[in-house]
Amino acid sequence: MINTRYVLAARPQGPATEDHFRREEVPITEPQTGEVLVRIHYISLDPAMRGWMNAGTTYIPGVELGAVMRAFAAGEVIISSHPDFKVGQAVTGLLGVQSYATVKGEHLTKVDTSLAPLSWYLGILGMPGLTAYFGLLEKGQPKPGETVLVSGAAGMVGSLVGQIARIKGCKVAGIAGGTDKCNYLKDELHWDVAIDYKNTPDISKALKEQLPNGIDVFFDNVGGEVLDAALTHLAKGCRIVICGAISQYNQSVMKGPSNYMKMVTARGTMTGIIVLDYFDRAPEACKHLSTWIKEGKIIYREQIIPGIEQFPFALSQLFTGGNHGKLLIQNLYV
Amino acid sequence: MINTRYVLAARPQGPATEDHFRREEVPITEPQTGEVLVRIHYISLDPAMRGWMNAGTTYIPGVELGAVMRAFAAGEVIISSHPDFKVGQAVTGLLGVQSYATVKGEHLTKVDTSLAPLSWYLGILGMPGLTAYFGLLEKGQPKPGETVLVSGAAGMVGSLVGQIARIKGCKVAGIAGGTDKCNYLKDELHWDVAIDYKNTPDISKALKEQLPNGIDVFFDNVGGEVLDAALTHLAKGCRIVICGAISQYNQSVMKGPSNYMKMVTARGTMTGIIVLDYFDRAPEACKHLSTWIKEGKIIYREQIIPGIEQFPFALSQLFTGGNHGKLLIQNLYV
Repeated sequence: MINTRYVLAARPQGPATEDHFRREEVPITEPQTGEVLVRIHYISLDPAMRGWMNAGTTYIPGVELGAVMRAFAAGEVIISSHPDFKVGQAVTGLLGVQSYATVKGEHLTKVDTSLAPLSWYLGILGMPGLTAYFGLLEKGQPKPGETVLVSGAAGMVGSLVGQIARIKGCKVAGIAGGTDKCNYLKDELHWDVAIDYKNTPDISKALKEQLPNGIDVFFDNVGGEVLDAALTHLAKGCRIVICGAISQYNQSVMKGPSNYMKMVTARGTMTGIIVLDYFDRAPEACKHLSTWIKEGKIIYREQIIPGIEQFPFALSQLFTGGNHGKLLIQNLYV
Repeated sequence: MINTRYVLAARPQGPATEDHFRREEVPITEPQTGEVLVRIHYISLDPAMRGWMNAGTTYIPGVELGAVMRAFAAGEVIISSHPDFKVGQAVTGLLGVQSYATVKGEHLTKVDTSLAPLSWYLGILGMPGLTAYFGLLEKGQPKPGETVLVSGAAGMVGSLVGQIARIKGCKVAGIAGGTDKCNYLKDELHWDVAIDYKNTPDISKALKEQLPNGIDVFFDNVGGEVLDAALTHLAKGCRIVICGAISQYNQSVMKGPSNYMKMVTARGTMTGIIVLDYFDRAPEACKHLSTWIKEGKIIYREQIIPGIEQFPFALSQLFTGGNHGKLLIQNLYV
């Protein structure tokens, strides 16, 4: 069998493009004792991938040049040399951008496709779902009646954060790019406020007008100008949860929040969410999230792009705001 | 009697200079019922004053154009129309840059000059002392053996923060400008590390070399490049306490911390210290601070400039790093 894989060919300075990857067709590696061969069905596209393309270590080391591009993925075991994994078992893990992965059993998470579709375990029941759940509830500590602002609000994590905040009785506002996304937040998710940053010349002014009590929790996926605007309108004792800075990942020099002293005068706190720290509490989050979906309290959208050769294009969509909902590549097997 | 006062004549865009103030000689205002007349002996020069010169409200409103420049000051009651204040009582308060202040008794704090010199109540036993004490201990939460880094380390607040951290059993490092200040930190205060930012081309590299375990608590008075350098070398679970950003107060656009995502990957927390929130706990801090001075555990330096006409010059010294220790103006009465 042939494995199609994308390896990191060059480190980008600015945006990641197809030039930074190389597609390779190689024979699959037979699993050794303790290993399994996974046929990958879905590959997750996540903003964190841009950071993984850089040299050096942040919370995990960057991908080596020539190595398979790191990605969360989901699939099924097709050959097993590990006693705990049967053929047909559905699994997720950091399986990479490829069609088959040969990995140690210890690096896999078993998932139950009788409870939810396999792809959900890369989204709402996977890393992004846990990020939203623990980032908002543990780091943001929202209280009923408080105002929660989310940037990147129509994205996978952002849309989930706002929906959880609504369940918790908060007033919810989102910042997203474009009329379609803002209509989605208002009309389908029933958020209180949606601000279209692409058509709002002064976001800070819009926040002041539409959130008269200030921002109690700001969940930031975006950074840059949006973060600076939010900082101008904080309520006393606000919690700022930094999840990402997608507006800045493609910049060679990141723009820091010029208005960070506003956080001081608001007696605010800035923290971040690293989802790896909460993996041991995944069952708790998945239980609540799947219940909320069943009850119709959370709407979950996926955008599934067929064909691994779409990977570089799909990744670029994440950073240009072209996607709607959780973005995935589906491997096609003939 | 004639009151000499400095009023805000213009709002600076960049550095505050003598052009932004106007000296006035006006008759003193007789105190009405509930008021007292204070002869001001010492006027405190504090970095916060630059912010007070701007329009708009941060934690307190900016000074109005034409109004007496706001300043903490200390003096004695010379006429009293308030039953709680006798002539001769030593007091502190926001008395302004002037030689006499007519104020309501409620706006004054009585101080005891048999316990410490009057000027100390503007420094180590006043707002800067409380800022250092509560900013480090409440916000920074240093634990014995941890590494505490202080910027603006030879300044009033910074030098106190590091000394308290040493008392608490921490490894203490300071960033200051110039050989004299760094020698003071090393030789007189016995700090573990002193980095001269004026003669260190790569502060980030120096931190990595000299603080191998990373920074557990960063107490920042400076902002800008120094904050960005500190962010590159955080220990896991670090606490960043933002006290000031003196490198940026004279800039028309503040530089935000470009490396703020490093705080996220370090699982850090960024908060600020606003000393007004701790005024009710002042006795607790003053008791500890005065004990530590008596025990020789804290060295306290003042730089007292005679003559109110030196006010604009003295203020500029704060921002160019020309001062050593707590900077005060002493009013001269003939």
